[in-house]
Amino acid sequence: MTEPQLQELSPADCRQLLATHHFGRLAFLDQVGVLPMITPVNYLLYRGQVVFRTDPGSKLVAAMHDRPVAFEIDGIDEQQRLGWSVLVRGHVEEVTDKIELAELGGTPLVAWAPGAKAHYVRVNTGKVSGRQITLTDLPANWLG
Amino acid sequence: MTEPQLQELSPADCRQLLATHHFGRLAFLDQVGVLPMITPVNYLLYRGQVVFRTDPGSKLVAAMHDRPVAFEIDGIDEQQRLGWSVLVRGHVEEVTDKIELAELGGTPLVAWAPGAKAHYVRVNTGKVSGRQITLTDLPANWLG
Repeated sequence: MTEPQLQELSPADCRQLLATHHFGRLAFLDQVGVLPMITPVNYLLYRGQVVFRTDPGSKLVAAMHDRPVAFEIDGIDEQQRLGWSVLVRGHVEEVTDKIELAELGGTPLVAWAPGAKAHYVRVNTGKVSGRQITLTDLPANWLG
Repeated sequence: MTEPQLQELSPADCRQLLATHHFGRLAFLDQVGVLPMITPVNYLLYRGQVVFRTDPGSKLVAAMHDRPVAFEIDGIDEQQRLGWSVLVRGHVEEVTDKIELAELGGTPLVAWAPGAKAHYVRVNTGKVSGRQITLTDLPANWLG
């Protein structure tokens, strides 16, 4: 069995992947602050930061408390047999600037789940890392 | 714009999705125990629990400390314009039973990243939830 090859992605590559995708997962601590939680979110890389919409609730609570979060995107290139992932670690905060809110209102940024999703929150992308792995030996039905 | 429709998935549907996929994301707290972290993992639903392989490191540290984790899988059915996700919340623990380890050694469970990955850890799937959302109004290039 061939050993898989792991390659770190450069910050520029990570940002390029973040800019060209719109679906990721946010990990945060629940209201009690001890249990990790993951939720899929539709996002937009806006002014270099991961921005998504939400209703009042656990994600927004996290935003209000400037809590630490992790945000992840990943993908598989079946033709090249490559898997990649990008991780952002930072804090989440609500977007309150009126100019930014007006700009965001003109983007196709929507949330998948029902609800007004009137709040925009952002994750600072200062700490970005990523990696790419060859999948040469994985069975085809293990890629999903 | 049509309002997206959200439907909760039954525990049976969630387990079926877990059984037929092999790639998910684990959220856990780092060694300090305060910062959430996400890592993609290749997994197998074995005896009803999410099992993956790892080397000594942060995931294994979490396992050793019986720390709370969240595990998520998701997918998109572009033809049906449906997005779905399944969330498992529980604790992670190392598999040490010799019979179970022997059985796991006979499965195609591999880890994508290089390394011996000699340790098997499992997430108890007692707390499983899932949902499915219609994507009727999402731009096609927003599905990835």
